[in-house]
Amino acid sequence: MEADILIRECTVLTMVHGEIIGKGAIAVKNGLITYVGEERRAPPLKAEEVIEAQGKVAMPGLVNCHTHAPMSIMRGVAEDQELETWLRESIWPLEAKLTAEDIHNGALLSCLEMIKNGVTCFSDMYFREDVVAAAVEKSGLRAVLAPGIIEGGDPERGERMLEEAVKVVKKYHGHADGRIQTQIGPHAAYTCSPSLLKKVGETASSLNVGVHIHLAESRETVRLVRRMYGEGEVAVLRKTGLLGPNLLAAHGVHLTRREMLTLARYGVKVSYNPVSNMKLASGIPRVKEMLEFGITVGVGTDGPASNNSLDVLETVKAASLLQKIRYMDPKVLPVREALEMATIGGARALGLSHMIGTLEPGKRADIILIDFRRPHLTPMLDVYANVVYSARGSDVNTVIVDGKILMRDRIVKTLDEEEVMRNAQKTAENLLSR
Amino acid sequence: MEADILIRECTVLTMVHGEIIGKGAIAVKNGLITYVGEERRAPPLKAEEVIEAQGKVAMPGLVNCHTHAPMSIMRGVAEDQELETWLRESIWPLEAKLTAEDIHNGALLSCLEMIKNGVTCFSDMYFREDVVAAAVEKSGLRAVLAPGIIEGGDPERGERMLEEAVKVVKKYHGHADGRIQTQIGPHAAYTCSPSLLKKVGETASSLNVGVHIHLAESRETVRLVRRMYGEGEVAVLRKTGLLGPNLLAAHGVHLTRREMLTLARYGVKVSYNPVSNMKLASGIPRVKEMLEFGITVGVGTDGPASNNSLDVLETVKAASLLQKIRYMDPKVLPVREALEMATIGGARALGLSHMIGTLEPGKRADIILIDFRRPHLTPMLDVYANVVYSARGSDVNTVIVDGKILMRDRIVKTLDEEEVMRNAQKTAENLLSR
Repeated sequence: MEADILIRECTVLTMVHGEIIGKGAIAVKNGLITYVGEERRAPPLKAEEVIEAQGKVAMPGLVNCHTHAPMSIMRGVAEDQELETWLRESIWPLEAKLTAEDIHNGALLSCLEMIKNGVTCFSDMYFREDVVAAAVEKSGLRAVLAPGIIEGGDPERGERMLEEAVKVVKKYHGHADGRIQTQIGPHAAYTCSPSLLKKVGETASSLNVGVHIHLAESRETVRLVRRMYGEGEVAVLRKTGLLGPNLLAAHGVHLTRREMLTLARYGVKVSYNPVSNMKLASGIPRVKEMLEFGITVGVGTDGPASNNSLDVLETVKAASLLQKIRYMDPKVLPVREALEMATIGGARALGLSHMIGTLEPGKRADIILIDFRRPHLTPMLDVYANVVYSARGSDVNTVIVDGKILMRDRIVKTLDEEEVMRNAQKTAENLLSR
Repeated sequence: MEADILIRECTVLTMVHGEIIGKGAIAVKNGLITYVGEERRAPPLKAEEVIEAQGKVAMPGLVNCHTHAPMSIMRGVAEDQELETWLRESIWPLEAKLTAEDIHNGALLSCLEMIKNGVTCFSDMYFREDVVAAAVEKSGLRAVLAPGIIEGGDPERGERMLEEAVKVVKKYHGHADGRIQTQIGPHAAYTCSPSLLKKVGETASSLNVGVHIHLAESRETVRLVRRMYGEGEVAVLRKTGLLGPNLLAAHGVHLTRREMLTLARYGVKVSYNPVSNMKLASGIPRVKEMLEFGITVGVGTDGPASNNSLDVLETVKAASLLQKIRYMDPKVLPVREALEMATIGGARALGLSHMIGTLEPGKRADIILIDFRRPHLTPMLDVYANVVYSARGSDVNTVIVDGKILMRDRIVKTLDEEEVMRNAQKTAENLLSR
């Protein structure tokens, strides 16, 4: 049996029913996983590239379900402010000045940061996702790109942005050997009218892509929607026809029990973004209940300017800890469940679980290796606990996406790290001086 | 002017009134800081060792106000359980079997992990602090060691443990060129009787050392104390005479407003341990109010088995985020205040602010360099925000304690990293098999 890549002698978390393989091997051919299992049971394998992975843990690449990648260049702009003040006084005025080049440089920086943190797939919502697509293609990452639409009381603007979104979907859905998928990204129910949302839903259906939206992020936005339409955000979305298994709802912090049950019934997916929810003081989503109701939940970092990091391992830890404190119960969201949320859960939330999210033969080879030979990952008594509670992005040693090695021994192969950082710094300084 | 070490061309956070020095230099002689300021204003300096630190940020070493260092060898034992179950069924039975060698190996592992995370001083409470002292001495760290006392209804045991504690204090207070200080560590009001606590207070006073105790960690312990003594934990401590500026109280999660005011009046110091508080679902301490009342607050990781990490930069971020969500206000505990808590705040909490906690001439040279040439620390627009929200322990490049370089370019000089990890792994496996 021939392989392009053979990973040897590692501990493997396949993320299938909590399976842990002691001395495991993984073979990759033409971008697909062709073998996962104990090394001694593997068929004789000849591989072009052999990765000796003693002391490392192999697992599916991390999935970041909600971010705004280009915002990395605004990391550190106006910290510790009210969301409204932050947006109106700092972020929106800067965003109005963003050029395609700025967006490209910000997206590249985020792609670089995500690779270094073991994120192999991310779901993005922003303007100019065509520009983000170029960065994703170059970086080698997998992504689901949702061109954003903010109508903001201007129906013409809404129409125009939807048209732009459609162009991006048509051009980039399935692009880069299928690594790039698309969705449409109406910002939220309080920034897009019901009639526009209805049209977005119909358009997305006809294009056979999903929809990515912010939902019930803060008390203020929930109140705003109720004031505008006299009913809750979920009810508003239901009437537009948007609720369904292709809808990815970010946040869901302030949902009633009844609204959660509605989301579950329609098969809506949720991105849980614990660090951002804390940093912006949005509140704590009731994820334990969401899971009990059968909602598929992935985790997200949110944009790098409201986190301020794209370290999904940090997010997984925060995800677990924040649920424990929400329910005052240390048993809530235990390590295995938390890690599932960042792998197969995220893959399901993005409609990609047939391709990624676990290590199984036939799936695309999105694999990371975490180096466990570190003081903070010693002793190795509980692999899941060490990954969730003790590991951080910097422990990720190797990143493979679609069968291609993007990082090995922490050296990124697809991007010039120094150049990406230099351009991002220049872009940020230039943007602030405009 | 001669120096042992000269650090050049770095950004310096002195942690004095939020000062940021652009192109800074720091000189160290005989363990003391002799110059901090702009490089161009520095006197001509000849140094034995010059550290070129372009792209790095120098700041005071991080202070970890509450941990149980030897517990690193129990990292990952019995996760996601109720505190009571975890202690009774897993931790206490294992602790009963601990040998001095186990404690030594665990303490060394924690010292190694702390150096790699930029922690230069920690406050420890555990059995056999004499053994921990040896590990601290070898590692080069600074520490305040509090031999623990758990009476647990057995007055003879309490007396015996106090005697042991006194021996450790007498032998190790001021040890290792003053890097080791001591306190006495009665575990808590629910495990030590008022009469023992009174004696601890008197003994500590006569030895001129402080006291380190757990206080109001969980609802259950608060209820327990009330059931045992018919009044609140702070009132019980007050009657024993323990309240005072030399008392370090860990946690303080479930304090009433009135209790906080009492602590403030007596000058009691608090260690805020946000990650442990979340992981064990203890609750969220009202640190914003503590600070308003004038209480000195430092941050702690708590033991590596209930965190599961000794990364104080992670703790600082969690400290800020958890207060924001507690008060539903993103302006609470802003970046500078959070970082002060982990440096000068911690130094004050341990009674060491005359020696450490800021970078100023005349203070002991406990300095760390954080490497900012990383994607997740780019752009550099707000140094404080990048340190608090984006940096992690692995970004610490260089660690100096008492004028001695413990780590440079992430290579630890004082400990054999491989050997420490190997011994810890063996110790853990052996302990679990006993």
